[in-house]
Amino acid sequence: MAAERLVVVGGDAAGMSAASQARRMKGPAELEIVAFERGHFTSYSACGIPYWIGGQVAGPDALIARTPEEHRARGIDLRTRTEVVELDVAGQRVRARELDSGAESWTGYDRLVLATGARPVRPRLPGIGAHGVHGVQTLDDGRRLMDTLERREIRRAVVVGAGYIGVEMAEALVSRGYEVTVLHRGVQPMATLDPDMGALVHEAMNRMGIRTVAGAEVAKILTDEEGRAIAVATASGEEYPADVVVLGIGVEPRTALARAAGLPLGESGGILTDLSMRVRGHEDIWSGGDCVEVMDLVSGRTRHIPLGTHANKHGQVIGAGVGGGYATFPGVVGTAVSKVCDLEIARTGLRERDALAAGLRFVTATITSTNTAGYYPGATEMTVKMLAERRTGRLLGVQIVGGAGSAKRVDVAAVALTAGMTVDQVVSLDLGYAPPFSPVWDPVLVAARKAVTAVRSAGA
Amino acid sequence: MAAERLVVVGGDAAGMSAASQARRMKGPAELEIVAFERGHFTSYSACGIPYWIGGQVAGPDALIARTPEEHRARGIDLRTRTEVVELDVAGQRVRARELDSGAESWTGYDRLVLATGARPVRPRLPGIGAHGVHGVQTLDDGRRLMDTLERREIRRAVVVGAGYIGVEMAEALVSRGYEVTVLHRGVQPMATLDPDMGALVHEAMNRMGIRTVAGAEVAKILTDEEGRAIAVATASGEEYPADVVVLGIGVEPRTALARAAGLPLGESGGILTDLSMRVRGHEDIWSGGDCVEVMDLVSGRTRHIPLGTHANKHGQVIGAGVGGGYATFPGVVGTAVSKVCDLEIARTGLRERDALAAGLRFVTATITSTNTAGYYPGATEMTVKMLAERRTGRLLGVQIVGGAGSAKRVDVAAVALTAGMTVDQVVSLDLGYAPPFSPVWDPVLVAARKAVTAVRSAGA
Repeated sequence: MAAERLVVVGGDAAGMSAASQARRMKGPAELEIVAFERGHFTSYSACGIPYWIGGQVAGPDALIARTPEEHRARGIDLRTRTEVVELDVAGQRVRARELDSGAESWTGYDRLVLATGARPVRPRLPGIGAHGVHGVQTLDDGRRLMDTLERREIRRAVVVGAGYIGVEMAEALVSRGYEVTVLHRGVQPMATLDPDMGALVHEAMNRMGIRTVAGAEVAKILTDEEGRAIAVATASGEEYPADVVVLGIGVEPRTALARAAGLPLGESGGILTDLSMRVRGHEDIWSGGDCVEVMDLVSGRTRHIPLGTHANKHGQVIGAGVGGGYATFPGVVGTAVSKVCDLEIARTGLRERDALAAGLRFVTATITSTNTAGYYPGATEMTVKMLAERRTGRLLGVQIVGGAGSAKRVDVAAVALTAGMTVDQVVSLDLGYAPPFSPVWDPVLVAARKAVTAVRSAGA
Repeated sequence: MAAERLVVVGGDAAGMSAASQARRMKGPAELEIVAFERGHFTSYSACGIPYWIGGQVAGPDALIARTPEEHRARGIDLRTRTEVVELDVAGQRVRARELDSGAESWTGYDRLVLATGARPVRPRLPGIGAHGVHGVQTLDDGRRLMDTLERREIRRAVVVGAGYIGVEMAEALVSRGYEVTVLHRGVQPMATLDPDMGALVHEAMNRMGIRTVAGAEVAKILTDEEGRAIAVATASGEEYPADVVVLGIGVEPRTALARAAGLPLGESGGILTDLSMRVRGHEDIWSGGDCVEVMDLVSGRTRHIPLGTHANKHGQVIGAGVGGGYATFPGVVGTAVSKVCDLEIARTGLRERDALAAGLRFVTATITSTNTAGYYPGATEMTVKMLAERRTGRLLGVQIVGGAGSAKRVDVAAVALTAGMTVDQVVSLDLGYAPPFSPVWDPVLVAARKAVTAVRSAGA
């Protein structure tokens, strides 16, 4: 029997995890694996780019888990700088273009993995293509940004967007000694939090010397005669001088290929899969990583959550399936952690607006405690906001902002959400206690106690 | 209607939490509250004593959450330096002795809370009562130890026992510049971990300059002519010179009063209660804190787990019940966290010997990863050991030893244990990921992946 051929489109976390896992399960005599990647790099941590730019990580090599050569040595026919430009579902083949030569050819497949990732939102604004305007989605993006920072005299940086990428890039640029202004459309930075919690991030950023401008709608990038960005102008007429502009507006699933081929897409434009990460309605196509939508176990809806940790899990599940095994990805609860300098930021589950959109009635409870016993040296504040469903008391979401040890506390809530616990059950959880690690009542439990009272007061 | 009287025996976490919660629910016209405490202090953090001794906390005042005067101001008739010496269950009264005057009197109760705590195990050895031999169970103990450290010329300290207290006291004494030797009976320090994990603690302690002696059975304390401890001698004949000796051998429930009154005690000598913390078979007596046994939800047996965080929860539950409300304490999973210098130590659920004793067949999986992304500056090693039940794959326990951020990771496993999750379910948990906080696969998930494989390999 001739070997079957697996074609993987996209050489980062999901795609190469899938390819590697499939290779562990089936040798080259059984399964030929061909992988296409548009960029120069494979299997890297895009989430690490801000730390490279900020100087905490020496260079892009540190962010690469496995190079193209390493993949090839494991029997994967990896073709970098090669973009898949068409998917012929009926013919079970893809058309790929070598980006350097422009040569194109078709490759047939028995099984296909689409792991095309996400692309930064780049609004169609005058000057958006100017030199010195950078996204930070891929290692190639990071390298271009570093080129700019090293070649130009930089004093002022403007970051557009105040989500995870925007905030992390603001920290990175401040740590390089630049004057940093963050322009964002919302009321508060970190719209992944409710505004009352985002306000804490806002205050902390300002204390760190990062200027934040709320309600800022970017209208155009002003350029000099050599086509280099020199300022960002907003719709209301303000101009913010900039020697470099970083776009952290968010990303969207990169699904032009899937869309053209008629694959099912969700409300956010991500590919829809079943629980084994197989594209719905397609026996021979799997998809995972930043190009898919995942099931949100709390709201019961699919969402687009681009995150390396999900992509890696998807890759494992797909690799098992493609290799003839069995695994599933049951969904997410929407956990995300971040930091800006010493301030840790975390969320899981639903924000107020998510709960409303899901048709849920809820109460909220917000408390401020400390990350360690109050008397322990270095104790810092930690604020926890908790959402619980009215009547049932079911935990719906948690947001945390505070000092060291705050962010990963959200994992407790993530597990409790997955288990469908009520806030009453959360109060009784047996969490680790010792003075260097927690007050005698862990802040998450203090928030749960307050939520229990709020649920009771709200009645049925 | 005359006010009912609540009598509380023991003025630390459980007793005074119960009294305070009851007072919030019922005013003095409805409920008179009398509380007896043997020592000088109330509502303090005994867990903070090592940090006071080590100099990170200024003095005992910082460890006191609420003073006797503060309790009295809230309408609690608190009598310090007064010990309850007899409980007359049939007559619903207690006999109390004022320790300074020796005066005794009976006090009747309608409802009784026993929160007598635990006492350090003090083996009956020659010299155990010598000057310079100290337990560290109460603030009064801490004050006596500090007196010794300040009055004597200390160069060498011997700590007997290498559990939480022993290890924390070793760190405290090293940080005061003493030569510290820890004598313990086991194969490895931290017998609350399996020996393979305890070995990591052992290595770390030795790197910090703490000498550890395994298999050491203390036979006597040698004293000088003024009755001061000068050395510790073991059964095998070794002598360890000591200017101060700290006993950290563990504690046992302080239940002489309950035992004499015929209250039900468990295998470890702790008082047995129902889920509302009412003493089994007694409508008008509640008990909580370090003098009770709690239900271990993983093994299905009651255990004695003296820990401030449980005591506080018990107090809340008892206060609600005594005050006419309703609350329960469903049990524990055995979570404990600690540190020795920079090494964090944590456990939850069952160790190998616990699982065997509970009649469970299991597999183990041990992995070493890092606390942050491997490329993030300051990444340090973190070792996770996981136990899972054979056949079902149910999570049974987790032990963690490693750098910053290791200990509180165990909370994820504590919640998963409470929810009865399998290791397969743990692999899919949506835990917070960002390079400063975790590798893309959180170490707990990596251990779970390995445990899944081990469960499959073990078969039925």
